Amino acid sequence: MTDFQKELGRIADQVDQYILAQLKPRKPNTLWEAATHLPKTGGKKLRPFLTINTCKALGGTEQSALPVASALELIQVFSLIHDDIIDNDRLRRGVPTVHTKWGIPTAIVAGDLLHTKSYEILTEAAILDPVILKVLPQLLHEMNHGTIRICEGQQMDEELETISNPSESTYLDMIERKTAALFEISTAMGAILATTESSKIERMRLFGSRLGIAFQIVDDILGLVAEEKELGKPVGSDIREGKNTLLVIHAVAICSKKQKRIIMKALGNSKATLAQIRTATKEIVECGAVDYAHKTAASYAREAKSGLLALPSSSSRDLLDDVVDFVLSRRY
Amino acid sequence: MTDFQKELGRIADQVDQYILAQLKPRKPNTLWEAATHLPKTGGKKLRPFLTINTCKALGGTEQSALPVASALELIQVFSLIHDDIIDNDRLRRGVPTVHTKWGIPTAIVAGDLLHTKSYEILTEAAILDPVILKVLPQLLHEMNHGTIRICEGQQMDEELETISNPSESTYLDMIERKTAALFEISTAMGAILATTESSKIERMRLFGSRLGIAFQIVDDILGLVAEEKELGKPVGSDIREGKNTLLVIHAVAICSKKQKRIIMKALGNSKATLAQIRTATKEIVECGAVDYAHKTAASYAREAKSGLLALPSSSSRDLLDDVVDFVLSRRY
Repeated sequence: MTDFQKELGRIADQVDQYILAQLKPRKPNTLWEAATHLPKTGGKKLRPFLTINTCKALGGTEQSALPVASALELIQVFSLIHDDIIDNDRLRRGVPTVHTKWGIPTAIVAGDLLHTKSYEILTEAAILDPVILKVLPQLLHEMNHGTIRICEGQQMDEELETISNPSESTYLDMIERKTAALFEISTAMGAILATTESSKIERMRLFGSRLGIAFQIVDDILGLVAEEKELGKPVGSDIREGKNTLLVIHAVAICSKKQKRIIMKALGNSKATLAQIRTATKEIVECGAVDYAHKTAASYAREAKSGLLALPSSSSRDLLDDVVDFVLSRRY
Repeated sequence: MTDFQKELGRIADQVDQYILAQLKPRKPNTLWEAATHLPKTGGKKLRPFLTINTCKALGGTEQSALPVASALELIQVFSLIHDDIIDNDRLRRGVPTVHTKWGIPTAIVAGDLLHTKSYEILTEAAILDPVILKVLPQLLHEMNHGTIRICEGQQMDEELETISNPSESTYLDMIERKTAALFEISTAMGAILATTESSKIERMRLFGSRLGIAFQIVDDILGLVAEEKELGKPVGSDIREGKNTLLVIHAVAICSKKQKRIIMKALGNSKATLAQIRTATKEIVECGAVDYAHKTAASYAREAKSGLLALPSSSSRDLLDDVVDFVLSRRY
């Protein structure tokens, strides 16, 4: 196990412990059970890893970063619960989604509860820790703005499914909000805890944003080519749901008419057979879409890495460099 | 028009203006349109009225109270949007609900957006106003805790529909969260802006809580006996949805077997005819449930009013006294 893997695992444990201590069962039990369902499944905790290591790389402490990182993880979890309702996804991380297990009403409210809990974690930590209290309005400003952009991205994602032949820039605009916004505030909020220099904060914000875009593109690649046991969700969900990912956009733009017909037969067709999904996937891959998407992700990853060069040498800087490689090469 | 009515109208206008200025249309248009749908329909703005007049009655200013009142109004709106999805209500304030007009996915996200916007309004106001900044952690603490209790109340409301013969205390426990929690933080947050004396804050919190309980009981009475044009939603919704209101709980506890059979035939029966609804309503009224509920509401209202006696005499104190009478006597 590499130092990076050890550190990722250690931070995941810390964040899990922190969050589960905040979500102790109380009445009404069903709601609190539903709210802890996803936090109990683990998850990689990449965003908390970014907050903690950005803070440390700029001279801040893990003690102040941990509650902020945990608050951001709950923003992620709440938006996943609501997204799964919207996309009607039945599996996540290999377990039934919250609405599949407890119904849509409880899942909506459990998401709302965790959304509020993320603000509660931040508020209560600020009351106890003067480092957080001093920058509380700035941290809130980031969290509010980031969450609003996540909502906008979610809506744009829905709308993108209904557009025929969307452009790459429409797609990038969407993922910059839906996915990269949270990476962006994860690094920005880590930086705010450690420094008042806005140039440093903005550099780390850009690092997070570029990494987030790379992450989403790789996610889309995995959504196309990975198997259910790696994904934790059924093969072909993205195609069945008609997601216009970078891969689909690229393939449709350059493929033959015959290939396009095959792809379009499966795309957004909730009744597509597994065979139709597999054939469509094959055509998308044969158009070179996976290579193209991987090159695009690598280019955002390089831009992210270049932002780290101005940081003083430290183990946290090295870990931030490692996380970029991890995002590019991950298989799940 | 009484002074109270004028002041309620004036505050409603102020809050509407404040909120709509924060919700200027931007991309994606559909989402922002959906989010402004309910704020554009007006609404009485009782909770903002409480925040502003509690603050003023304790020596604070309307200038500091207005953004806080507006943030609380958005908590109310976001929870209504999600509630309407959960209850599958098609009309609110005489207009189609957000999910009826834009679909469930956009309504979920529009609710999330307004939930975040309420925190944004509070944060940005604190950055500009030192009075708010000084008590920001305390205000956030109230808003977080209140919103969590609203979520718990929402879940308890869902669960109450599935319990046969629930007790009055189960019902009161539910409305204390679902409805009274927001009244409670509306007065507590108004007080926090004006004073550091916790006895005064707690007294105003209790005032809000008791008024909120009275409000919900009156709401349940109107839900049973008012007509569609007064309610802004179809007659008999509560009965069709199987809401175990104080009226139903009381009627079922004291009525004859025959009456109970008639009530139970309509309660929670989504296919009940209007005639069945009307007959069930008649039996509930004939059991004396409306009188009983009104007396219970009046008793909470009296308790609320008694909390105002310790306040120095002022026009704001008089307005808080008036709002209790308004809540008890309202017909819509």
